[in-house]
Amino acid sequence: MQWWKAILLVLGLAALFSLGIILGHFAIPKADQPEATVPISPIQDLDQEMLETVMGQLAASRIQENLRELSLKPHLATTLRDDYLVQLLLQRWQSPDSGLDAAGQGVYEVLLSFPSQEQPNTVRVVSPGGATLFSAQQSEANLTGEQGDPEVVQPYAAYAPAGTPQGPLVYANRGTESDYAYLKEQGIDLNGTIALTRYGGVGRGAKAVNGAKHGVAGLLVYTDPRDINDNLRFPNETFPNSWALPPSGVERGSYFEYFGDPLTPYFPATPSAFRLESDNIQGFPPIPTQPIGFEDAQVLLCNLGGSIAPDSWQGALGCDYRLGSVFLDNGTFPRDSLVNVTVHNRLELRNSSNVLGIIRGAVEPDRYILYGNHRDSWVHGAVDPSSGTAVLLEITRVLGTLVKKGMWRPRRSIVFASWGAEEFGLIGSTEFTEEFFTKLQERAVTYINVDIAVFANATLRVQGTPPVQSVVFSAAKQVSAPGKSNLTVYDNWLQYSNRSSPAHGLIPRLGSLGAGSDYAAFVHFLGITSMDIAYTYDRTKTSARIYPTYHTAFDTFQYVEKFLDPGFTSHHAVAQTVSNILLRLSDSLLLPFNVSDYSETLWSFLQAAQDSLGPGLEQQGISLGPLVSAVERFDRAAVALDGHIQTLKNTSDPLKVRMVNDQLMLVERAFLNTWAFPEEYYYSHVLWGPRTSQVVTFPGLADAYDEALGTPNDPSAWAKVRKQLSIAVMAVEGAAATLEPVDAF
Amino acid sequence: MQWWKAILLVLGLAALFSLGIILGHFAIPKADQPEATVPISPIQDLDQEMLETVMGQLAASRIQENLRELSLKPHLATTLRDDYLVQLLLQRWQSPDSGLDAAGQGVYEVLLSFPSQEQPNTVRVVSPGGATLFSAQQSEANLTGEQGDPEVVQPYAAYAPAGTPQGPLVYANRGTESDYAYLKEQGIDLNGTIALTRYGGVGRGAKAVNGAKHGVAGLLVYTDPRDINDNLRFPNETFPNSWALPPSGVERGSYFEYFGDPLTPYFPATPSAFRLESDNIQGFPPIPTQPIGFEDAQVLLCNLGGSIAPDSWQGALGCDYRLGSVFLDNGTFPRDSLVNVTVHNRLELRNSSNVLGIIRGAVEPDRYILYGNHRDSWVHGAVDPSSGTAVLLEITRVLGTLVKKGMWRPRRSIVFASWGAEEFGLIGSTEFTEEFFTKLQERAVTYINVDIAVFANATLRVQGTPPVQSVVFSAAKQVSAPGKSNLTVYDNWLQYSNRSSPAHGLIPRLGSLGAGSDYAAFVHFLGITSMDIAYTYDRTKTSARIYPTYHTAFDTFQYVEKFLDPGFTSHHAVAQTVSNILLRLSDSLLLPFNVSDYSETLWSFLQAAQDSLGPGLEQQGISLGPLVSAVERFDRAAVALDGHIQTLKNTSDPLKVRMVNDQLMLVERAFLNTWAFPEEYYYSHVLWGPRTSQVVTFPGLADAYDEALGTPNDPSAWAKVRKQLSIAVMAVEGAAATLEPVDAF
Repeated sequence: MQWWKAILLVLGLAALFSLGIILGHFAIPKADQPEATVPISPIQDLDQEMLETVMGQLAASRIQENLRELSLKPHLATTLRDDYLVQLLLQRWQSPDSGLDAAGQGVYEVLLSFPSQEQPNTVRVVSPGGATLFSAQQSEANLTGEQGDPEVVQPYAAYAPAGTPQGPLVYANRGTESDYAYLKEQGIDLNGTIALTRYGGVGRGAKAVNGAKHGVAGLLVYTDPRDINDNLRFPNETFPNSWALPPSGVERGSYFEYFGDPLTPYFPATPSAFRLESDNIQGFPPIPTQPIGFEDAQVLLCNLGGSIAPDSWQGALGCDYRLGSVFLDNGTFPRDSLVNVTVHNRLELRNSSNVLGIIRGAVEPDRYILYGNHRDSWVHGAVDPSSGTAVLLEITRVLGTLVKKGMWRPRRSIVFASWGAEEFGLIGSTEFTEEFFTKLQERAVTYINVDIAVFANATLRVQGTPPVQSVVFSAAKQVSAPGKSNLTVYDNWLQYSNRSSPAHGLIPRLGSLGAGSDYAAFVHFLGITSMDIAYTYDRTKTSARIYPTYHTAFDTFQYVEKFLDPGFTSHHAVAQTVSNILLRLSDSLLLPFNVSDYSETLWSFLQAAQDSLGPGLEQQGISLGPLVSAVERFDRAAVALDGHIQTLKNTSDPLKVRMVNDQLMLVERAFLNTWAFPEEYYYSHVLWGPRTSQVVTFPGLADAYDEALGTPNDPSAWAKVRKQLSIAVMAVEGAAATLEPVDAF
Repeated sequence: MQWWKAILLVLGLAALFSLGIILGHFAIPKADQPEATVPISPIQDLDQEMLETVMGQLAASRIQENLRELSLKPHLATTLRDDYLVQLLLQRWQSPDSGLDAAGQGVYEVLLSFPSQEQPNTVRVVSPGGATLFSAQQSEANLTGEQGDPEVVQPYAAYAPAGTPQGPLVYANRGTESDYAYLKEQGIDLNGTIALTRYGGVGRGAKAVNGAKHGVAGLLVYTDPRDINDNLRFPNETFPNSWALPPSGVERGSYFEYFGDPLTPYFPATPSAFRLESDNIQGFPPIPTQPIGFEDAQVLLCNLGGSIAPDSWQGALGCDYRLGSVFLDNGTFPRDSLVNVTVHNRLELRNSSNVLGIIRGAVEPDRYILYGNHRDSWVHGAVDPSSGTAVLLEITRVLGTLVKKGMWRPRRSIVFASWGAEEFGLIGSTEFTEEFFTKLQERAVTYINVDIAVFANATLRVQGTPPVQSVVFSAAKQVSAPGKSNLTVYDNWLQYSNRSSPAHGLIPRLGSLGAGSDYAAFVHFLGITSMDIAYTYDRTKTSARIYPTYHTAFDTFQYVEKFLDPGFTSHHAVAQTVSNILLRLSDSLLLPFNVSDYSETLWSFLQAAQDSLGPGLEQQGISLGPLVSAVERFDRAAVALDGHIQTLKNTSDPLKVRMVNDQLMLVERAFLNTWAFPEEYYYSHVLWGPRTSQVVTFPGLADAYDEALGTPNDPSAWAKVRKQLSIAVMAVEGAAATLEPVDAF
């Protein structure tokens, strides 16, 4: 062998050997080896580079593909396709490649409501002689193919009772208490009538409850083009030609007035759980109810006679709306025709699943950052809820991969959730809070909800309790606004919705949390600091109540791709914002909650109470003084805690950090009072409970005050006001005590 | 100057200088210097030597002197002497020499009940003509001087309404529901009668509530020598000649059926708190009521006619007890004489104080070991409650001194409490739990109650929730039994009261917590692991219901010194036991709670339910299966956690320790269910709530079952049983979830 051959051979062997090593290292999965782990110090803080890495790996195209799969078929709660998606989520989260530490399924046996497949619900105009003159459509027009899927559920009002009321038709605007009262004032006898109402103004169920009080026998609900379509109503101007609702589109929905499984309030709906007798169920609509599209509503409403309805009751169906209860003399139907509403809905006990996935925290596994969305839809649900789930799956992919590669593990545990049966009344999430009540009360740092991720592509919209403001702002400042690469999500938001804060100057406006999605039980029942995140409308361009195809068979993948978020840039921005928030909450040494932002809320609640209730209270000898003292005490405690936190920035004592974080985590819990809203299920948060008063202050106080004004000579009504004031004072004092130095009593 | 003089001068100056240094160091208090501190590592464990030091420094003589001072004068809640003792406690705990880090006063404005000083309550026998034939004594005989103190309150039934009922006398035994029913069965018309009852059997208030239901107009209550004196009744055999109750002694007491300030349930009774209208107060006795001594009771009862009472109703007054409602034909009073009960009690809003002292924890100041007792008495209250307070003050002295000297500081914070107005219904402690609800719920590890420290000098008696068993046993094994130096408190206890435990073999028996002292709100309302500690009777030697001078003017320092605990050795043993427990709880790295001992309780509750309720439930189609599964799950979780704790014995990670301790601390909270006892205030602990059933199992379940048996065909009664079963299952499952690995859902 020549010397150069020997050299070549040696070099060649060496190269081969090296290649082998390289291949062995990179190409062969190390099945039996423990996954690489990142050593994490107990005082390690959030890693800004990791934040960039995560946000950089989120791909709009993957969100798009997730959405395509998720919205391929109708997936109403507990149907076959819903079960299929449960399996899909389990596969993604349980796969050894996923990087999640565990995933599983929580099944609850819950009471749902479905229309009959054999006997569809009908809405008919019937002549005085009994002949059917007109029948409303039983399904939406098949405009893009999806609407023809046999799995599309007939539009219906979930939990409305079966029945066949027939009577004169009246138009009752939005079905509020004052709408029905107005009809009565106009001399219309509502007993035995069918009331036609439009969506909006009050909740679905309230339209039925209010009507039934006045003797209304059956309820119809439709979506007026004025409220949803910026007045568009013709096929050529609606979907699939624009984002607007087609004439046949019908908003489905739950008419249940409370949330959680209706049979098992305060119990997780396990098979053996105590269930109410059906007579004892609270909050179901009392009368047969059916939603219809505006095409059918137009036939009814534009033929309706009687007095002309007030201006504010008019809509965009192209005719004068009249009150009824007779049809127009010159119209399509004889004057004394009646409307027949036939509802065959039935209640069924069904197994509904939550899917949970977890990435275990490296340092504080017993502190949970929860992030979830529901999975069930009314039909294909591309926007509601699959836009949120598409984002959720992309975030779990990116975070899981980093865990799998050993590049990252959060300080605290992250729990991902796909809730079942939200559309029927936030059922899956509520049952979860019941099952894990104590565990969550002890350990949950926050709940992040992303239901509809993208309503529209104009601006970020966040609802939450005040402590989340700071972390949301920090995240929003690090994400580029979709379609406006020179602007951050934060700066863009600031342009669309802002307020002047005494502490921070001009800042984006954070909304407060009602009960519109799965955060409800977390914030109201458990007192967990919560937020709800989405991209939403430019309100200068549309006055639509919500995106027009909401809860219809037109809420499809194509709808999203073509009209709501072409290129999925808004979905991408939401994913980046949410993942940034998630990491800040899971990885920051000190929780990024600013409790002083709660002081600002309390001062504004106090100011509103002083301005709007103060003089009336004074007349009754009720002083707001104790509330002033309580708010001052909270403020002082928050400022002092902020100061204490500053001293911990460079601490090496993980217990000191934990103690302060516990204060930050638990202050929200301190605002709970189980006895604050005795007529409601679950609501315990003294600041964010339900409020009908217009005064933005402590809801129990505001409502009790309104009620007492109605019966000013009833001492028991003013006693209720006093009691609610005490509840408010006690909550604020208790929260202050949580923030004060831990060794102070 | 000669050279030796110079040397002497130098030496002298040096000596003087040295002396100055020595004097300066030892004799001048270092007022401005920071106190010495012990460096404490975050993983430091309990120091056994410190345990010995603390126990060794506790002095029986100091407890004795504390008691002498505390019981010198009557100190009924909110009287001048009670205020004086508030100041005494504040001085002891706030003094710079005390070593406590802080002490202060919490004042609540609460509703108390007092007799009128101007118009004493009276009990008279009145002839048919209206003449007074006999008057019961208005005060106790002045046998030892203390009874003559003008501050001795007239015996009365607190919260009994004012009124002057007059009617035939009946004897109603213990005033239970079945006692009154028996009288009716005997043909006695109870309407308008005065019922004479004896203490025992049921609570004070229940005697009045039960009687009023049957039309009884006024109630008398006395203490029978059979129940309190082992039948002794003559002056020469009673105090001051023995520990027995003198004939004139009267047990005062609260007849309020609930606890906490009656006007402010669920609110701390701050001046501005919401207060119920007096018509809405729940739980006051409905009829005028007055307690009397057995000397007076004898006059009434031994002259009473009618049928002879059953054997079990007879007592030791030396005559046959008859039912009434007439007097004996040959007795002191005409047959148709009536009894007049005149009560002038009045309700008053008073300021009652708690005194709190704190030693700040060095490592986990936000974890609280609470240790308290009430301060208010009925009269001098040497036993009740000053025996407990005398021990409390000695323990704070010893611990404070160690802190002051820089020799010790606990890992966790220790909070000492002297509660106000306990005798009226655990008022001070309950208001405290209301004011600091969230703070305590989040952070309180345990509450230790020592009310009456020494009932008698035979044996330790501990009541508590199961997790305290292990720490109490550990402590009791390190203390010598008083008067039996070769025996530990543990071994002595084992001889007096024991049981066979599946896990531990023969062990002392731990009692469960009712609502007899200030632990009630802590365990039932807040779910805080609690215990109550005392030294008590040899039950082979006495059958006294309680120590004989309980709540009388004979409960004096002399009584304790002479009869209950000569030499104060039992007080000393209680102090040693409690301080040992206190240090174990404050200083152990891992909390010394054994949750597996809760499994044992759950298994026994389950067994009792299966044995006593199982067949009846099965007939109704109600399965205990879910409860079996829940208990099995709890058991598995407890065993697994025990295993995990073993792996942490040598850990260097303080966060891992904190996480496990949080599980141990919070498992008790998990047994709470606010909706478990809807007819009760405060009671939320599903295992230890009130129970009237004889079956020792989940109280809500047992009582609902009993109720349903009474109305077996009422489906709603069986629905209540089902609901209570679900509440039990949910509580046990929730507690199991708290013990399971923190990243499991």
